[in-house]
Amino acid sequence: MSNNNKIDGMLTHAENVILVIDMENDFVLPDGPMKVAGAYATLPAIKKFLDYGRTHEWAVIYIYRIHRPSGIDAELFRRHFFEEGHPFCIPGSKGDAIPDLIAPKPRDMSITKQRFSAFFGTDLDIILRGLGAKNVYLTGTQYPNCVRSTAVDSMSLDYNTIVVTDCCSAATEEIANANITDLRNMGISCVNSSEIMK
Amino acid sequence: MSNNNKIDGMLTHAENVILVIDMENDFVLPDGPMKVAGAYATLPAIKKFLDYGRTHEWAVIYIYRIHRPSGIDAELFRRHFFEEGHPFCIPGSKGDAIPDLIAPKPRDMSITKQRFSAFFGTDLDIILRGLGAKNVYLTGTQYPNCVRSTAVDSMSLDYNTIVVTDCCSAATEEIANANITDLRNMGISCVNSSEIMK
Repeated sequence: MSNNNKIDGMLTHAENVILVIDMENDFVLPDGPMKVAGAYATLPAIKKFLDYGRTHEWAVIYIYRIHRPSGIDAELFRRHFFEEGHPFCIPGSKGDAIPDLIAPKPRDMSITKQRFSAFFGTDLDIILRGLGAKNVYLTGTQYPNCVRSTAVDSMSLDYNTIVVTDCCSAATEEIANANITDLRNMGISCVNSSEIMK
Repeated sequence: MSNNNKIDGMLTHAENVILVIDMENDFVLPDGPMKVAGAYATLPAIKKFLDYGRTHEWAVIYIYRIHRPSGIDAELFRRHFFEEGHPFCIPGSKGDAIPDLIAPKPRDMSITKQRFSAFFGTDLDIILRGLGAKNVYLTGTQYPNCVRSTAVDSMSLDYNTIVVTDCCSAATEEIANANITDLRNMGISCVNSSEIMK
């Protein structure tokens, strides 16, 4: 069953891990209720980067924001969406699904979260430790909230943290660039995927 | 949509919460691969207590241990089960399901975990805060590991923590009683469900 860092085709060791953060239809599609303006345009770059990673036996972990239909696990400032009858990121809904172009493959893993950072109240650190991860590459949306919070926690936990700039997005270019400046000043790498894949 | 502590029938506020810990077939059934000897016999008491709680608008949260098929998220001392081709608590498997007698109802919630404590790397505290929980009642298996670790973390987080003794189990009565002694010495209530329901 077990050999060469795999059990039944599942990775049991991976020093390189790609996170795909919050790329659910509710945030990505042009008519998504929580649309991040820049997210849809990053789909081709994310697909290319995921293909590269999978070819090199990197692990891929999809980070899903999910909320229970009551909304009791949403941030306080968003709970009104649920009270007003406009819930989002409900498990099993269309809004919770990943766009086809970057849909998960059978070997990929997933976690669910309720806050900005993918480490807050989740098993992400358990998985990364279990894999023996060293380098954590961040893709997804959006820069000021979930990408940044996850990057800071990843760096804080001593993973070599790389934000893949053309695979992350924000509402505007200005917001993206301001966050990249801050992240670089924290010692977090921010590089274009072409620099990593070359 | 929202009134009287409910949205679409889902609880949005509950001061009393019952946790059902690790009562999955793999741990409970007489032929379960990870059987805890005392667990099966607690099913009727748990059912009765859950019925009581639901009638009084208490929240019920099922705690599922789950592991990814690779086993990379299992404790180191258990990872050999996966390497040897005997995985357990795989999501969607028969072993991961809750026995029919205490099966979840539509209004109940669930979380997943990979370690003993239901608070370790999970969103349980997010949910309890969201509900405004004050009293946390523990049922499930087993006393020395998951019940105890969860009780200690619940107490540490300042929830009034009650271990429901006839609804929890261990491999032997001696182990159960030794843990109840320790838990009481920590200021954690350990009481029979009849005392709570009277």
